[in-house]
Amino acid sequence: MVKAIEDVMPQIAFGGDYNPEQWDESVWLEDAKLMQEAGVNLVSVAIFSWSVIERKEGEFDFHWLDRVLDILHEHGVGVSLATATASPPAWLSKDYPEILAVQANGVPYQIGSRQHYSPNSKRFRYAVKRLVTEMANRYKDHPALKMWHINNEYACHLSECYSPESLEAFRDWLKERYETIEQLNQKWGTNFWSQRYNDWDEIQFPANLPTFYNPSQKLDYERFMNDAIFELYKIEKEVLRDVTPEVPVFTNFMYEFKPLNYFDWAKEMDLVTWDSYPDPREGKPYRHAMHHDLMRSLKNGQPFYLMEQVTSHVNWRDINLTKKPGEMRLWSYSTVARGGDGVMYFQWRQGRAGAEKFHGAMVPHSNDPNSRVYQEVKQLGQELKQLNGLAGAKGTAKVAIIFDWENWWAVEHEGKPHNKLSYLDQVYHYYQVCYEQNIAVDFVEPTGDLSNYQVVVAPMLYMIRNGEEKHLEEFVQHGGTLIVSFFSGIVDEQDHIHLGGYPAPLRNLLGMTVEEFAPMADNETNTIVSNGEISIVDTWADIIRLEGARAVAHFKENWYKGKPAVTVHRYGKGKSIYIGTNPATECLASFLTGIFQQSGVKAPLEAPKNVEIVERKKDHTTYLFILNHNDDPVTISLEPNKQYEDCLQNSSVSDQITVGGTDVTVIRF
Amino acid sequence: MVKAIEDVMPQIAFGGDYNPEQWDESVWLEDAKLMQEAGVNLVSVAIFSWSVIERKEGEFDFHWLDRVLDILHEHGVGVSLATATASPPAWLSKDYPEILAVQANGVPYQIGSRQHYSPNSKRFRYAVKRLVTEMANRYKDHPALKMWHINNEYACHLSECYSPESLEAFRDWLKERYETIEQLNQKWGTNFWSQRYNDWDEIQFPANLPTFYNPSQKLDYERFMNDAIFELYKIEKEVLRDVTPEVPVFTNFMYEFKPLNYFDWAKEMDLVTWDSYPDPREGKPYRHAMHHDLMRSLKNGQPFYLMEQVTSHVNWRDINLTKKPGEMRLWSYSTVARGGDGVMYFQWRQGRAGAEKFHGAMVPHSNDPNSRVYQEVKQLGQELKQLNGLAGAKGTAKVAIIFDWENWWAVEHEGKPHNKLSYLDQVYHYYQVCYEQNIAVDFVEPTGDLSNYQVVVAPMLYMIRNGEEKHLEEFVQHGGTLIVSFFSGIVDEQDHIHLGGYPAPLRNLLGMTVEEFAPMADNETNTIVSNGEISIVDTWADIIRLEGARAVAHFKENWYKGKPAVTVHRYGKGKSIYIGTNPATECLASFLTGIFQQSGVKAPLEAPKNVEIVERKKDHTTYLFILNHNDDPVTISLEPNKQYEDCLQNSSVSDQITVGGTDVTVIRF
Amino acid sequence: MVKAIEDVMPQIAFGGDYNPEQWDESVWLEDAKLMQEAGVNLVSVAIFSWSVIERKEGEFDFHWLDRVLDILHEHGVGVSLATATASPPAWLSKDYPEILAVQANGVPYQIGSRQHYSPNSKRFRYAVKRLVTEMANRYKDHPALKMWHINNEYACHLSECYSPESLEAFRDWLKERYETIEQLNQKWGTNFWSQRYNDWDEIQFPANLPTFYNPSQKLDYERFMNDAIFELYKIEKEVLRDVTPEVPVFTNFMYEFKPLNYFDWAKEMDLVTWDSYPDPREGKPYRHAMHHDLMRSLKNGQPFYLMEQVTSHVNWRDINLTKKPGEMRLWSYSTVARGGDGVMYFQWRQGRAGAEKFHGAMVPHSNDPNSRVYQEVKQLGQELKQLNGLAGAKGTAKVAIIFDWENWWAVEHEGKPHNKLSYLDQVYHYYQVCYEQNIAVDFVEPTGDLSNYQVVVAPMLYMIRNGEEKHLEEFVQHGGTLIVSFFSGIVDEQDHIHLGGYPAPLRNLLGMTVEEFAPMADNETNTIVSNGEISIVDTWADIIRLEGARAVAHFKENWYKGKPAVTVHRYGKGKSIYIGTNPATECLASFLTGIFQQSGVKAPLEAPKNVEIVERKKDHTTYLFILNHNDDPVTISLEPNKQYEDCLQNSSVSDQITVGGTDVTVIRF
Repeated sequence: MVKAIEDVMPQIAFGGDYNPEQWDESVWLEDAKLMQEAGVNLVSVAIFSWSVIERKEGEFDFHWLDRVLDILHEHGVGVSLATATASPPAWLSKDYPEILAVQANGVPYQIGSRQHYSPNSKRFRYAVKRLVTEMANRYKDHPALKMWHINNEYACHLSECYSPESLEAFRDWLKERYETIEQLNQKWGTNFWSQRYNDWDEIQFPANLPTFYNPSQKLDYERFMNDAIFELYKIEKEVLRDVTPEVPVFTNFMYEFKPLNYFDWAKEMDLVTWDSYPDPREGKPYRHAMHHDLMRSLKNGQPFYLMEQVTSHVNWRDINLTKKPGEMRLWSYSTVARGGDGVMYFQWRQGRAGAEKFHGAMVPHSNDPNSRVYQEVKQLGQELKQLNGLAGAKGTAKVAIIFDWENWWAVEHEGKPHNKLSYLDQVYHYYQVCYEQNIAVDFVEPTGDLSNYQVVVAPMLYMIRNGEEKHLEEFVQHGGTLIVSFFSGIVDEQDHIHLGGYPAPLRNLLGMTVEEFAPMADNETNTIVSNGEISIVDTWADIIRLEGARAVAHFKENWYKGKPAVTVHRYGKGKSIYIGTNPATECLASFLTGIFQQSGVKAPLEAPKNVEIVERKKDHTTYLFILNHNDDPVTISLEPNKQYEDCLQNSSVSDQITVGGTDVTVIRF
Repeated sequence: MVKAIEDVMPQIAFGGDYNPEQWDESVWLEDAKLMQEAGVNLVSVAIFSWSVIERKEGEFDFHWLDRVLDILHEHGVGVSLATATASPPAWLSKDYPEILAVQANGVPYQIGSRQHYSPNSKRFRYAVKRLVTEMANRYKDHPALKMWHINNEYACHLSECYSPESLEAFRDWLKERYETIEQLNQKWGTNFWSQRYNDWDEIQFPANLPTFYNPSQKLDYERFMNDAIFELYKIEKEVLRDVTPEVPVFTNFMYEFKPLNYFDWAKEMDLVTWDSYPDPREGKPYRHAMHHDLMRSLKNGQPFYLMEQVTSHVNWRDINLTKKPGEMRLWSYSTVARGGDGVMYFQWRQGRAGAEKFHGAMVPHSNDPNSRVYQEVKQLGQELKQLNGLAGAKGTAKVAIIFDWENWWAVEHEGKPHNKLSYLDQVYHYYQVCYEQNIAVDFVEPTGDLSNYQVVVAPMLYMIRNGEEKHLEEFVQHGGTLIVSFFSGIVDEQDHIHLGGYPAPLRNLLGMTVEEFAPMADNETNTIVSNGEISIVDTWADIIRLEGARAVAHFKENWYKGKPAVTVHRYGKGKSIYIGTNPATECLASFLTGIFQQSGVKAPLEAPKNVEIVERKKDHTTYLFILNHNDDPVTISLEPNKQYEDCLQNSSVSDQITVGGTDVTVIRF
Repeated sequence: MVKAIEDVMPQIAFGGDYNPEQWDESVWLEDAKLMQEAGVNLVSVAIFSWSVIERKEGEFDFHWLDRVLDILHEHGVGVSLATATASPPAWLSKDYPEILAVQANGVPYQIGSRQHYSPNSKRFRYAVKRLVTEMANRYKDHPALKMWHINNEYACHLSECYSPESLEAFRDWLKERYETIEQLNQKWGTNFWSQRYNDWDEIQFPANLPTFYNPSQKLDYERFMNDAIFELYKIEKEVLRDVTPEVPVFTNFMYEFKPLNYFDWAKEMDLVTWDSYPDPREGKPYRHAMHHDLMRSLKNGQPFYLMEQVTSHVNWRDINLTKKPGEMRLWSYSTVARGGDGVMYFQWRQGRAGAEKFHGAMVPHSNDPNSRVYQEVKQLGQELKQLNGLAGAKGTAKVAIIFDWENWWAVEHEGKPHNKLSYLDQVYHYYQVCYEQNIAVDFVEPTGDLSNYQVVVAPMLYMIRNGEEKHLEEFVQHGGTLIVSFFSGIVDEQDHIHLGGYPAPLRNLLGMTVEEFAPMADNETNTIVSNGEISIVDTWADIIRLEGARAVAHFKENWYKGKPAVTVHRYGKGKSIYIGTNPATECLASFLTGIFQQSGVKAPLEAPKNVEIVERKKDHTTYLFILNHNDDPVTISLEPNKQYEDCLQNSSVSDQITVGGTDVTVIRF
């Protein structure tokens, strides 16, 4: 039986990727001592070690790794041990070129960077299983082993493969899904453009086409590749569970990552971990925050680990800005506030060679213990120890945003009325308003449990699969408030239109229908009027006909002037709201504020601009994180007549509290 | 003997593409009834039906199509029957992969969208011929059959193929053109860059080159591909003519379509049909109008059919704006005004699945008989019946623009003095001025009959083939006014320079020579002065030396200040004008207005801005179309003391007439 | 023993590429007479003649070329005879397709443009050697032969090849460099990302990778391709030296050309020649000037030939502006002023066919002897005769800029802190300031002789190879002033970080260390203050800690406000300066002016803006070139009480001299 993470790591995990094979053994001891000094209690080891461990096929050399784990353990540093499968060694692709992933033009990827394997290669899967089995057996009893880190950032560079073996696998996957070729023809609508198949062997990739792909086929290819890569993960997991049934396993997720359906994946993980690299050019990191909330939501609120972030700057953007003093610490507290029980970095020691040598690290090239970067790391490592009681605490959201990977895939296919729509941008749009108001948000799958929420938002939920509308109806029936935005409820799981007037499956719930879409040109805007207030909208207008709902905003311009832009419909004990355009941020904020007030949803405390306030609860203790993203100090009023404890200062607080510029306070009660 | 279109369809054709195979049989009867209601009298059937008709090689299933044609016929709807060859079925490319078109990188296109065949594949041609023969024999006597629609939008996605079979065909084509390899070496100028060929087998595609291609070779490749695709068309035509000698045949042309030489193609078509999709973002559709005029001109003024347009919005642009209420109708009347005897749509019923499901249709997804879109369709369908007497009427242009596909190909090759020149933009530039002034325009080939015109414009006629200049000289000799714009008369049919001073073949006719080209940078402008009036020019300046002509405008700036910009030369009874720069629209308009006045060319009526007025004549009746593209009504003065009949109102009109915003009046006298 | 160029051509060489095989023999005599008239004394013949000379494998036809050389010689025109290997004939790639260069996607290039050969093809090398041997033996005694022009613009289109034979050659090159695979693993840092190699055969190209390449591997591939192409050159040179030991040999270099390490190449050339095509859109041609200085520096100040320029306009840019009257002449004098003893053009007669037919020439398409272009050519040809005594004269620079091709390759690899940095732009930035002040500049390799210079500038010298810092230390030690700009001294020759605090190898010399890099976003700027003066900087800020140096400028904004931006360090008898940001041009100019004054470096004469003044010295004569790039005349004060001779006017000058707009004066004393 697998152990709970809190049992494995009762404290906040702090550390980073550690790649000792890139350094002489003489550095290892120095590393361990520095880690101790910096408060490091967990490091990820062996992520890219395959070519060092298995230097020839079937010959394993673990002596160096034994030594590394021993040293770490002796210095009180736990190990999140990677299975070393993230990138295959050169001999594997030389001896078995069929393991190489293939580009759409038929050209194989090659050794020379990383992750050049095809997820569908049986030979690759065999090699992976052999390596993981060896790893597991070697280290199953090593005291440093805390958890298993499977592979690394699955699909970060390669989420498509066009190898002959992948084509076979795609056909097999389709056979399993559709059973008969006639069923596939139906589900792909192949009578369009003369695409009927007589036989599975006639099916090709949705690639190298003279023009638009079949969207149903494309969607299935996306599903197939997600499943294929997931299968790779499950092969490893099975071995590890078998050999070390108590040790938690996971892989690390990524930022804004579309190809993998993380809701599915999380079900097979004992811990959600992810890698966050917000661009300092973006300013206040609400995207970073949103992803924390999303990652926490993947396993129903269970705390996650931030497995990678950077101390200073990355090296893979066009221009890589450096985080200002204090920003790394402040953003790390946003992680903890939003459910992070681990704060880790890529990487421990900045590399000397290779493609990532200009990527920041906990110990920079200068190896200078007085460097700003190392000093900030050390400060945070020591501080976090004071929050150890927090591990396992949960969030308190009353608002949920529906998030769905298959919808993401489908809605961004080509051939739409408006082909510059970004699903993530629509989600960000709604999230940002909540974030600015310190309204806590969870994310849920369309079929997820909605019973804990007052307000549910479904931005651009283009795809409604069979019966999912019932789930939403039930939520509203029982008193919830549902907000649906434009271009929702249009297609079924095959990306076929729900006939009968858009958005057919939601028409009853929303009490209206969309007669036409009226996308707007790039610099086109319109205005809407609501209660005499005029606001700007852009991107899209729905031509709405009311069927029970009432309009609460109308368009002011263009040929659909006077037509409804936003509608509200009483349904059961609740209400459903439809937003048939893309409101400017202020407009949306004002609108959502009204809804939150009506639904009794509010922020933990009132706060000035750019102050992020987040709650976590555990047993009977509430932790309040107050993050000041301003340069200057702010003073926040606390609830009157209430005693709080300042966790980092170990002092008592009441009435009000002042938080410095780019600083954080954590209080509990 | 093939029947005249007016005999086959004495009324204005109205209808659209109809794809019943995408729907259950139960929908077919509903469709036919709705068509009847909407005034539909012609539909295009079976365009993408190959994979449904020939499910296995050589096994044909026509039962469903029999039923469809029967139902349509029973409801008074004629059929433009497609030969179903537009996209090959999956089994064909699986069993004979040599039919696949190949990309320049050697990778074949695949099944999954449409049109993935190589026009040069003998196996494909064989399969096409077999299918068309079956189709023709099956339906030769069906009463619904009105005309044959061969293939569909030839080359719309694929106008280049780099398969081994295409290479063989290219070499054969060259052998036929040049007979000896030495002749080819001469005509391609292969002593340049060491490109001599000893043997036909040494010749490759103009692709995968380290740098600039040989422009003569490129031009021949473009000619070859046009011919190869044309050959495909002719194979089908021959079968159809053989089996159904009385039934008109055609394929459908496209908008701004460069790869196919439509003047050549039209000679093998009984009816020009084309598909028009102007972008609503462009505003008033003068491009749409110009293409109508071009399509009408392809067969010397014979009426054409608009075979496809969209009711509301397409789905293949980045952002697809919806036509405003009335716009579809108004633009359809522009079609009829400019020689369209058919107004058809893609498509009848909006698809549920596939890449075009968000493309507008006559019956939208909602299937709602009260939808705006369907209502507008129905109104137009009923209205057009009142214009049935019009079918066959001709235009009345006294101005012609020379248009030449080979010139288009050659002038846009790389390696020019200015490599951002667009042939079409130059033609649009001159056309737009005429359009705004309601001056009717025909288009002619360089060797076309010019005897009916007062003014002929040759915008950027870079290529003058052997003796073509004589044709222009004769036109001017006999009293015509010829306008030639910059970068004309430069090369021969091989894209070799006409030596002896630019524009050598026109130097005598124009009475001047161009000593140097002086292209302008992107934001550079100059000014010219003519009769004291100063105007802006950009893009290009010719350094002109007069040789008999006189300058009517001079450059005002830069090192060629004071040199001629526009020249006029008396020649025989007429005059030839050279415009050695790119004048701003107002400047060009003022200049052309003067020429039109001198030549006695004028608009049918005077009209305010944004009112389009076009004439068609038949026997002794003149039809006047007055299209008001403004939002507000306009009043137009008619010729005094003349009685007109309002065709749509069935009323009498004189003196003046008021046309509503976004509305149209058709009067006749 | 090879003859000195001055002995072969004691006059200024004047002429151009001559391609008689593109014309009938009847034109050849006309050409020779025109050349005589224009002052032409040297033409480059046979550059692209392979397919005409060797029409079939091993069968050589030289009769036409004999005749051409005879005619030229009879008219007093010398010949720079090309080896005709620039582009292989069609039969060669048909019979031996392995000679074709291959794209990264595995697709071979083809005949149809030029230079489609793989430099690594043994068969190609064999064919080259055979042709050159024939050429050399045929013409070794021809009196027209002045020098050998090997191939043409090596690598101008193809500097990468991915053929199987290139892969073998790459592995062999690596074997030679590293001897053991373990050594390669060390030098490439292959423990990063699991890239270890067991065997040379496992190594692939740095291409077709899922993500970032290994930078050490990439750098070696760049070195390898440079060496492979250089090897091709050396094969030809060896043959020619063997057959004609007295005849100078060279190839022609290019503008802003990164793939070939010209410092290395120049060591194997008897004369540096290069092709210069500045874009008239750039205005005053300081880039043109910088390349002249660079070309002169490649062989330690030995005069070079400008082998190609254009009279009017090229045809390969998007828009090709025409040089204004006088510009071609003025820029040609800049060539001579900066060490050019030859002024040549591409090409003599403008081509009638092929990809370059719109490229300007000495004789334009009109063949008009009164054309502006030909007249300007003739004037220059006659004028240059008056400067014949100048040939061999040297420059007088006291300032040197370090320029290094390997640094260029490495610093522009991906994965840097700032990935929009251009090495050339940084060099231009420093050069331009010198150019505007008429401060003469040489370029040197990092290991080049610095003993003649007062000031040495090292812009962005990212790579410092083993011990190179000693060379710089010595220069400063002995009293020199060294200026180093940001992102210097970071890596060793393998592109591995110099550990120990940036810039580790220069830290001692500069007396400071860079603790962090702080790249700036695209529109971000900062300011620095120095002596109370505030200037704008952008792109980059170094976070500097002083270690002996003193700060002479500080940042004014952002989190590193108050930190040093520019530092000065006394070292031995000299001083070293570090510029840790990218100053705006005015700021840099003011800063360098101060340094030049302190170092006693100055312009030959004081001059108004846009007047270029350059000195050349020979024996005891100094030639002063005064080029007026303004439209209006300028008057320049000469040194008082000194007599000068005006070389072009053959008159005496003193006190002051007036130079017309777009005109030049050459005086000597």
